[in-house]
Amino acid sequence: MRWNDRRILDLFNIELPILQAPMAGASTPEMAVAVSEAGGLGSVPSAQYSAEQLREIMKDVRSRTRRPLNLNFFAHEMPNPDPARDMAWRARLASYYVEFGLDPAAPIPSTGRKPFDAAFCDVVEEFRPEVVSFHFGLPSDDLLDRVRNSGAKIISSATTVAEAVWLEERGVDAVIAMGYEAGGHRGNFLEMDMATQVGTMALVPQVVDATSIPVIAAGGIADGRGVAAALMLGAAAVQCGTAYLFSPEAKIPAVHRAALLDARDDNTAITNVFTGRPARGVVNRVMREVGPISDLAPPFPTAGSALAPLRMNREAAGSDDFTNLWSGQAARLAERLPARELTLALARGAQAALGRM
Amino acid sequence: MRWNDRRILDLFNIELPILQAPMAGASTPEMAVAVSEAGGLGSVPSAQYSAEQLREIMKDVRSRTRRPLNLNFFAHEMPNPDPARDMAWRARLASYYVEFGLDPAAPIPSTGRKPFDAAFCDVVEEFRPEVVSFHFGLPSDDLLDRVRNSGAKIISSATTVAEAVWLEERGVDAVIAMGYEAGGHRGNFLEMDMATQVGTMALVPQVVDATSIPVIAAGGIADGRGVAAALMLGAAAVQCGTAYLFSPEAKIPAVHRAALLDARDDNTAITNVFTGRPARGVVNRVMREVGPISDLAPPFPTAGSALAPLRMNREAAGSDDFTNLWSGQAARLAERLPARELTLALARGAQAALGRM
Repeated sequence: MRWNDRRILDLFNIELPILQAPMAGASTPEMAVAVSEAGGLGSVPSAQYSAEQLREIMKDVRSRTRRPLNLNFFAHEMPNPDPARDMAWRARLASYYVEFGLDPAAPIPSTGRKPFDAAFCDVVEEFRPEVVSFHFGLPSDDLLDRVRNSGAKIISSATTVAEAVWLEERGVDAVIAMGYEAGGHRGNFLEMDMATQVGTMALVPQVVDATSIPVIAAGGIADGRGVAAALMLGAAAVQCGTAYLFSPEAKIPAVHRAALLDARDDNTAITNVFTGRPARGVVNRVMREVGPISDLAPPFPTAGSALAPLRMNREAAGSDDFTNLWSGQAARLAERLPARELTLALARGAQAALGRM
Repeated sequence: MRWNDRRILDLFNIELPILQAPMAGASTPEMAVAVSEAGGLGSVPSAQYSAEQLREIMKDVRSRTRRPLNLNFFAHEMPNPDPARDMAWRARLASYYVEFGLDPAAPIPSTGRKPFDAAFCDVVEEFRPEVVSFHFGLPSDDLLDRVRNSGAKIISSATTVAEAVWLEERGVDAVIAMGYEAGGHRGNFLEMDMATQVGTMALVPQVVDATSIPVIAAGGIADGRGVAAALMLGAAAVQCGTAYLFSPEAKIPAVHRAALLDARDDNTAITNVFTGRPARGVVNRVMREVGPISDLAPPFPTAGSALAPLRMNREAAGSDDFTNLWSGQAARLAERLPARELTLALARGAQAALGRM
């Protein structure tokens, strides 16, 4: 397949302008290997692992493909402990604990997502992923320098032009323009107001105009038509997440898979109730009754802890009422294929759409 | 210029797949004439006119172009009088009246937008516009039959797949898939929850898949790249609004023009404070302090009456604090051209983007 815009292909040394979105908890090493072997860029999310776990994952992945890989990290700062706020959040959820026979006062283990740190950086230096991507901004300058010196190309997500310009000023090699349609955690880090987040169709060309680095379009792209449209907007590649959740390589609860199979264009919303940061998922009971945006939700990632017992209890009963059903607005467009075939189908679909004109 | 997908071109008998959005209050007969003469489809909004005023407008427009025209109407139902709710709304705004030396208890004239009715339908039958478009759904079956029997092609806006299917079932000839990015009043009529509205990138292909009529893409499209992207998504044409607000043919207050010149990707939001229905505009003081969405705002179009004295007072002082600054998320992309040149630039820009691939 021939691509006129080779900026991202040459930068990452890949064959297809398709990035698999790193989806902490849902992506698997198998998914990353399949996408990279197909010629796209497979991604390994790290925030759910310890550095030691990530080392084992990378050993495994590197043994199964010699193609370029993206290693993804979260760049948030861990909030200071705020027991009063945590208790207010548990109080908001207490009636659900009672409803399902759980003890609202029982200690709950902290479930969290770890930010990039020196220990993670050691893993980067050891395994030298070709691309390192960050979500929620960028880590401190010294850590960023270490990543850059490892030889990795660095990318991060922007949900506004201002965030894209901020990232370019700090030396990223490419920017992901993440539109309103995208599933999972939004990458926003300068702007916290969800009322002004920008749709992909408007965001991508404005980021292209405001920066001089290659732009990767994300949000609402789940088939070849979307890939072709993104290229028309000036993107050099796309990042797809939700479409890969239908692949057998995805590791998601049965209730999440069922919700995705039923997803419509208009039944997702951006919510902060699951983790404390805004993320798009299929609307369910806890989003309807507590959110979708709640001022009570403590900062990322601590909001998730108090939800965990409810989620486990309800999933065991076959209910998705308390599960984060991450999905973008274009789940319905996705061909339900293994990760390798999906990657090829996205690329071929784009070529077909481009060829029709 | 050659266009592979001729469905909308042949349906409306136009040369370019570009519709100028009807923008009640901002569009002018001059704008519609310029767009239609350029080969696109010019639109005349009607909701701000009486039937008699519209008759004069149509006489004028028809005398200046023989090209096809779109006559646009609102299809809302007028709400029953609800003095208690109106008073609660005036109470919410009373402190602003005091701040600017206005009498909060003075009678205020009702400023409104009139729905399509038999008198408007007489004008359609008299002037036989080639296209009649509706916003907020469709009028009653008997009126719709009269429009259809006049020979007009009928179109309306959908903000979700469900709305598009509803419109197709009622026999529209084409559907406008209006994404989240679009400026001005959203066309939503089945779904009132703004949290689940769909971005253009995700909406257009899902409407294409769910219907068998031609799809016109709207929302976030303000240059040739956006037009080309919409065609890739399967749209047969696009509708652009915000871009035309920069043309000399647009009739908008100076404060609105200034806000558009400063517009960024991330400083608009969807608000109901100006009219009672959700509409996207540049964020200003009343949106920040009262909205952007307020449960107190009475139903469309009555919310606007109590704002009118504040708007007039503040505009006279050069302030946009109480003015509805309608804009989509892509104002920044617009070339600032007269309506005829803009129409040609959108079409040529699309051809150039398509040609690059």
